[in-house]
Amino acid sequence: MKKWVYMFKEGSADMRNLLGGKGANLAEMTNLGLPIPQGFTVTTEACTDYYNNGRQIRDEIKDQIFDALKQLEEIQGKKFGDPENPLLVSVRSGARVSMPGMMDTILNLGLNDVVVEGFAKKTNNPRFAYDSYRRFIQMFSDVVMEVPKSKFEEILDEAKEKKGVKADSDLDAEDLKEIVVKFKALYKAEKNADFPQDPKVQLMEAVKAVFRSWDNPRAIYYRRMNDIPGDWGTAVNVQAMVFGNMGNTSGTGVAFTRNPSTGEAKIYGEYLINAQGEDVVAGIRTPSPIDKLAEDMPEVYEEFIRIANLLENHYKDMQDMEFTIEDRKLYFLQTRNGKRTAQAALKIACDLVDEGKITKEEAIKRIDAKSLDQLLHPRFDDKALKEAKVIGKGLPASPGAAAGRVYFTAEDAKNHHDMGERVILVRLETSPEDIEGMHASEGILTVRGGMTSHAAVVARGMGTCCVSGCGDIVINEEENYFTLGGYTIKEGDYISLDGSTGNIYLGDIPTVDAEISGNFERIMKWADEIRTLKVRTNADNPVDAANAVKFGAEGIGLCRTEHMFFEAERIPKIRKMILSKSKEAREAALNELIPYQKGDFKAIYEVMEGRPVTIRFLDPPLHEFLPTDEGDIAALAKDMGLTVEEVKETCAALHEFNPMMGHRGCRLAVTYPEIARMQTRAVMEAAIEVKKEKGYDIVPEIMIPLVGDKKELAFVKQVVVETAEEVKKEMGSDIEYHVGTMIEIPRAALLADEIAEEAEFFSFGTNDLTQMTFGFSRDDAGKFLEDYYKNKIYEFDPFARLDQNGVGQLVKMAAEKGRATRPDLKLGICGEHGGDPSTIEFCHKVGLNYVSCSPFRVPIARLAAAQSALNNK
Amino acid sequence: MKKWVYMFKEGSADMRNLLGGKGANLAEMTNLGLPIPQGFTVTTEACTDYYNNGRQIRDEIKDQIFDALKQLEEIQGKKFGDPENPLLVSVRSGARVSMPGMMDTILNLGLNDVVVEGFAKKTNNPRFAYDSYRRFIQMFSDVVMEVPKSKFEEILDEAKEKKGVKADSDLDAEDLKEIVVKFKALYKAEKNADFPQDPKVQLMEAVKAVFRSWDNPRAIYYRRMNDIPGDWGTAVNVQAMVFGNMGNTSGTGVAFTRNPSTGEAKIYGEYLINAQGEDVVAGIRTPSPIDKLAEDMPEVYEEFIRIANLLENHYKDMQDMEFTIEDRKLYFLQTRNGKRTAQAALKIACDLVDEGKITKEEAIKRIDAKSLDQLLHPRFDDKALKEAKVIGKGLPASPGAAAGRVYFTAEDAKNHHDMGERVILVRLETSPEDIEGMHASEGILTVRGGMTSHAAVVARGMGTCCVSGCGDIVINEEENYFTLGGYTIKEGDYISLDGSTGNIYLGDIPTVDAEISGNFERIMKWADEIRTLKVRTNADNPVDAANAVKFGAEGIGLCRTEHMFFEAERIPKIRKMILSKSKEAREAALNELIPYQKGDFKAIYEVMEGRPVTIRFLDPPLHEFLPTDEGDIAALAKDMGLTVEEVKETCAALHEFNPMMGHRGCRLAVTYPEIARMQTRAVMEAAIEVKKEKGYDIVPEIMIPLVGDKKELAFVKQVVVETAEEVKKEMGSDIEYHVGTMIEIPRAALLADEIAEEAEFFSFGTNDLTQMTFGFSRDDAGKFLEDYYKNKIYEFDPFARLDQNGVGQLVKMAAEKGRATRPDLKLGICGEHGGDPSTIEFCHKVGLNYVSCSPFRVPIARLAAAQSALNNK
Repeated sequence: MKKWVYMFKEGSADMRNLLGGKGANLAEMTNLGLPIPQGFTVTTEACTDYYNNGRQIRDEIKDQIFDALKQLEEIQGKKFGDPENPLLVSVRSGARVSMPGMMDTILNLGLNDVVVEGFAKKTNNPRFAYDSYRRFIQMFSDVVMEVPKSKFEEILDEAKEKKGVKADSDLDAEDLKEIVVKFKALYKAEKNADFPQDPKVQLMEAVKAVFRSWDNPRAIYYRRMNDIPGDWGTAVNVQAMVFGNMGNTSGTGVAFTRNPSTGEAKIYGEYLINAQGEDVVAGIRTPSPIDKLAEDMPEVYEEFIRIANLLENHYKDMQDMEFTIEDRKLYFLQTRNGKRTAQAALKIACDLVDEGKITKEEAIKRIDAKSLDQLLHPRFDDKALKEAKVIGKGLPASPGAAAGRVYFTAEDAKNHHDMGERVILVRLETSPEDIEGMHASEGILTVRGGMTSHAAVVARGMGTCCVSGCGDIVINEEENYFTLGGYTIKEGDYISLDGSTGNIYLGDIPTVDAEISGNFERIMKWADEIRTLKVRTNADNPVDAANAVKFGAEGIGLCRTEHMFFEAERIPKIRKMILSKSKEAREAALNELIPYQKGDFKAIYEVMEGRPVTIRFLDPPLHEFLPTDEGDIAALAKDMGLTVEEVKETCAALHEFNPMMGHRGCRLAVTYPEIARMQTRAVMEAAIEVKKEKGYDIVPEIMIPLVGDKKELAFVKQVVVETAEEVKKEMGSDIEYHVGTMIEIPRAALLADEIAEEAEFFSFGTNDLTQMTFGFSRDDAGKFLEDYYKNKIYEFDPFARLDQNGVGQLVKMAAEKGRATRPDLKLGICGEHGGDPSTIEFCHKVGLNYVSCSPFRVPIARLAAAQSALNNK
Repeated sequence: MKKWVYMFKEGSADMRNLLGGKGANLAEMTNLGLPIPQGFTVTTEACTDYYNNGRQIRDEIKDQIFDALKQLEEIQGKKFGDPENPLLVSVRSGARVSMPGMMDTILNLGLNDVVVEGFAKKTNNPRFAYDSYRRFIQMFSDVVMEVPKSKFEEILDEAKEKKGVKADSDLDAEDLKEIVVKFKALYKAEKNADFPQDPKVQLMEAVKAVFRSWDNPRAIYYRRMNDIPGDWGTAVNVQAMVFGNMGNTSGTGVAFTRNPSTGEAKIYGEYLINAQGEDVVAGIRTPSPIDKLAEDMPEVYEEFIRIANLLENHYKDMQDMEFTIEDRKLYFLQTRNGKRTAQAALKIACDLVDEGKITKEEAIKRIDAKSLDQLLHPRFDDKALKEAKVIGKGLPASPGAAAGRVYFTAEDAKNHHDMGERVILVRLETSPEDIEGMHASEGILTVRGGMTSHAAVVARGMGTCCVSGCGDIVINEEENYFTLGGYTIKEGDYISLDGSTGNIYLGDIPTVDAEISGNFERIMKWADEIRTLKVRTNADNPVDAANAVKFGAEGIGLCRTEHMFFEAERIPKIRKMILSKSKEAREAALNELIPYQKGDFKAIYEVMEGRPVTIRFLDPPLHEFLPTDEGDIAALAKDMGLTVEEVKETCAALHEFNPMMGHRGCRLAVTYPEIARMQTRAVMEAAIEVKKEKGYDIVPEIMIPLVGDKKELAFVKQVVVETAEEVKKEMGSDIEYHVGTMIEIPRAALLADEIAEEAEFFSFGTNDLTQMTFGFSRDDAGKFLEDYYKNKIYEFDPFARLDQNGVGQLVKMAAEKGRATRPDLKLGICGEHGGDPSTIEFCHKVGLNYVSCSPFRVPIARLAAAQSALNNK
């Protein structure tokens, strides 16, 4: 028979997957001989079985639970449900990884109308007994039976009001007895049944509630945000109660071995005299700092410090501990590696290394790479933020903090930026035409659009703060103001945005810039020594490129060339190209663009100082460059000497039903080889000139997007090579260059062996590859993905974290097939996934040479790459 | 050293891949001892080498050509370029399969200013010699050097006019000498060089021209239409000349051993006295029927008949032969299996079986499955067609012939159809709202849209004649008429459409219906005995289903359920469902739809008499059901008691950037399980009722579209199973049913092993799978695919023929993975590819259980399935 239940003494720290983190640590502490109220753990497998079994707990498991309960009775010398000498227990969830606040705790389980009387007698403390009972009824009703806690609070408040007192502690035994009667009546009214008096029923209902809680919407959301698989399940810990609410020689508290905000190596925590755990959390009474325990009960404090140090040394990490003092006797209820801020994580890791407790490698593994994001964007000055007024909230679309004057068009934003103002662009939604204005802005605020809207994606790429989808905003376009939260914000007024929380603030809050120094720098250096994966960045202008280099980027993995066309001076020229009726006219228009593109590339090459730069050729469908509103169309027609109808006809002819799957990428170069020719010329001339002027060893990497067939790549490559050789000849240069391709179409992955005959490198464009492989577009999927999360069909956003199971198969296949043809094929990834730690580990395992991500994720990628190397040694 | 050149006597019929069809047959005939002018063949590999070698013929090949030429000189006892006794040759292309008319022939090569003199002396026929020379100059200039033939014709015409004669034969030697001078002057003017006098140069230029011709646009197009790979290359046949233009005891002709139009077992052909091959083709003189040869030269005729019979018996197939008589001596210049109409193919195959010459299996293999299409649609009465007036031409979007009265809206078409009229629907372009009108029409004519437009795809599915993209049409919508080719066609006027040619005719041309009888029926019966692949049909109404059964369909592989919603009575109800604000309102609206869907399914189940029917649940995005024009929106708003703004808001909210990759397929059922519930109820109730009423053994197959994840299917399946069990219980039925899925998203193929845990069958939706795998949408790809064909990137339309190389990998993977999980998994294909013979062979090899295609392709699929079984024994 399978073992579904373990006594604490049967487990150990390495049984985390089976017993959950809490259960494993309780077992470990038991083995260490620490003062732990004993108990048992129902395994995570029992939880999985519950779900597979139509949400039923099978008898076998029930039997083992009651067997364990019997053992616990013997250990504690008490009996469950025995009024003479009752065993009371707590019931808590405990998954493999801590999911704080996801699932509630039930204390004092085992009390009923009879037992409470015996308990009062035995403890000689009727007030305490009835207080424990009313707490149990309240917690059980709320957590297990979904009777709202607030209704119980109302009864409690009434009783206090009636008696004219303020604190719960001012209620005496008789008051509490009356409250218990009312609580039970409320329960009966709500559930149409008596409050369960059988402790065994109470226990099994509580276990089921823990299992159920694994699938509540909060837990599902938390798992998605934290990459926790839904089939892990949670364990249940049943533990003998100890009581912090037995008087002034009792208490309960939470403490950390180091400061979780700053990392300072000093015990940090708080406790409450005469209280149960929930009181600390509830915040009704203000707890005292842990130091006060040294005054209140010095010998208990000393014991506490001894054990805290022992635990930190044992786990070799900062511990987050819960403890209870029952009549001067100290118990530990749990310990775990403490959550911490990124800043604290870095300091603690460095300190532990310096203290000789862990190695650099262990330090690297300890830090949550994702959390570094907090340190990589400007943030508000803490003091100023405390006084700031929140006027609304949108989605935290791109992290960081920004303050500036509000403008409502990209053009105004750009102009006022050029006049030296800090600006915030506020738009209904953004489109590619807004790029210049977005670039000029400190922050972007949109009324519509989700986390994957144009504004969000572009802003994240730029590292610009963005709050999207704030539907409460009403913009008045004629009079240039918007209203939000009862305030009217006019053009030119200051607001501040926090892209990490989605908060929108009134006024101009000062911000503090990110930099890599101190502990951060040390950790990054260690990471660089360990990792084998290179880290590049996605950047298409010198500012982003310089930023990325500052953050440690070793090259550019994706330099898009289309954003360059949206600038005010250039867009008329690209429109002219599109409206050209002949190849000759198109070439003439393109020739006008060469100096701009070349200038862009030169600036980037200069900033990159010889680091590799992969330049992707024109990708979006041409209609993205055309105007959509009547005025712009008329202006363009006039400018081009065409009728409005002619311009509209071209726009209509370029309209596509599914632009994502339309005439874009290398398909443009097949139809208009002259575009590829122009871009090749710009790249080669820029590279040769910078090489000559600065002496950098530049080897241009030209990347052809959206390839799905070897012949398609061969066709475009031929155009590129012909032009490149022409330029080399003209300029008397023998510069080397490489031509490669994106792998972003499923067919390219399937035929990677053939494509590698033509491609000198592959870069996985996992954004498009994800879209095509799943068959949904990022722009449209927002409408239904929530339903998928809700129904547990998907557990994470495949645009944020690579779907290793599905899309990953194509990446692996392409890597293997490509290398089979060309063993030295250089492989990289340049989708948004390139900055996601779990994807980075996948890339490491698949054998990619580098990942490329937005500048602000470069340090995350460096760390994640090092962790991948360590995890896969 | 590789052998690049083969003398005829060195080859044989089974060397077709190397020597091309013509070369292999010339070799075979040589071995049979038939009167063949000797020669040699430059291999197809030499052609491929030419392309791989930068369009150069390498010296090694050149050397082998001149070695072969030397051998030929010895055989013929003549010398190339020797004025005393010149060897003249013809140069012809010859690919593996015959590509009639793709590449031209050069005759009389080896003549120059000196040789022609000697030739005149030797033949004692200066007129003949100069006629041969002027023909050579003309052909060489045209075919090799691209000097337009017409310019030479002008000179010839001038000469005849000047002399006051009509026929070429009225020109004498002196006239021809003068013409030769003028021809050479023309050549020099055009090419800025003298006409090449060196016969070796002439020969090599001619060989190169043949190689080049393999890649001319006509050839590329022909290959694409006929599934011929571009890397096969063509061989070149160099053959000693014989002359049909040596006087009245000479001649040349073409003949078939049986009639290629009707299949009648009687020699069929024509010949010209005193002529070279080109004269027969050019049509300047009218050839005589082959019978006349019996009168003119009885002994030659007898010999001809003997050899023709010998060839047919040797190749066991109807032969298409070219012959020349040189001074009463008969030569065969080539033989090949003759092209034939579908009708002739069936008769010839049956006759050859009856004559004991071939087996039924061989007969099956002989017939081009695709060609059956000609027999499966109504066609115009031949006599009536001769008198008909073509007024315009569009794309041949869906084959068949149709005549009827013109109407300009789907509604008018429907109404007049209901009044008993035959109608032709004429639209700018069609949309899903037009479905009912399209169904009611005999034929559909659109101004916009290609071969893969909505009109074309839907019409092909229905087997309705359609001519699309006739851009010359100007529709006047207010006054209900259109103009085309100078004619004005008013509403109610008759026109006729030929969907196989794209021709648009004035008036009402009688049509003849298709039926399967006689030879066709015999062949189909044989095919059914041989094939292992089942053939189902795609049909979503009883009429199409009945048609398909008549054509031999063994079930329905794809019954779409959305078309049913577009009917006038129903669309308001589906719109009501879409505009519902609550689940309850949506359910109420859906309940109103149940009787309709159930009625549809009952009618289909009745027609199918117990044959399997796979019903696919709602697939398109909901916005397809909403009105787009202001009037309809206003009407809908009124109808629903909403404001116009509210309706517009819903429309706007449902707008998608890439609807193909949007909220559709099973994604709808995840968001609105009530839709799946309604459809399940309709299917189950219909099946149970028809089973009870008619006693058919119905096992409903419910197909969930667009699945990409096991959990997604599990979610929808649960809804289906719950509802189905509910209905079974209500109706007291124990009916079986199956739930399966489409495999049409790349991810579904990659994860087919997991998905098969939930799916009882897979049906490959290769339309969508092709779109997602290639990353282009069918609606948009038309804009650039032509460039892909032109540049030889793609050789065929991946929407017509399955891309076995890429998409096929996913199909194979899914089949293997699916069967690994569930060995009895039923596999089918229901994309448009299901009716394509080469795809059918692929499906056979991959181990699918059935293919499903439109009703009119069922016989093609039956035959192709039999051929696949034979080819893969």
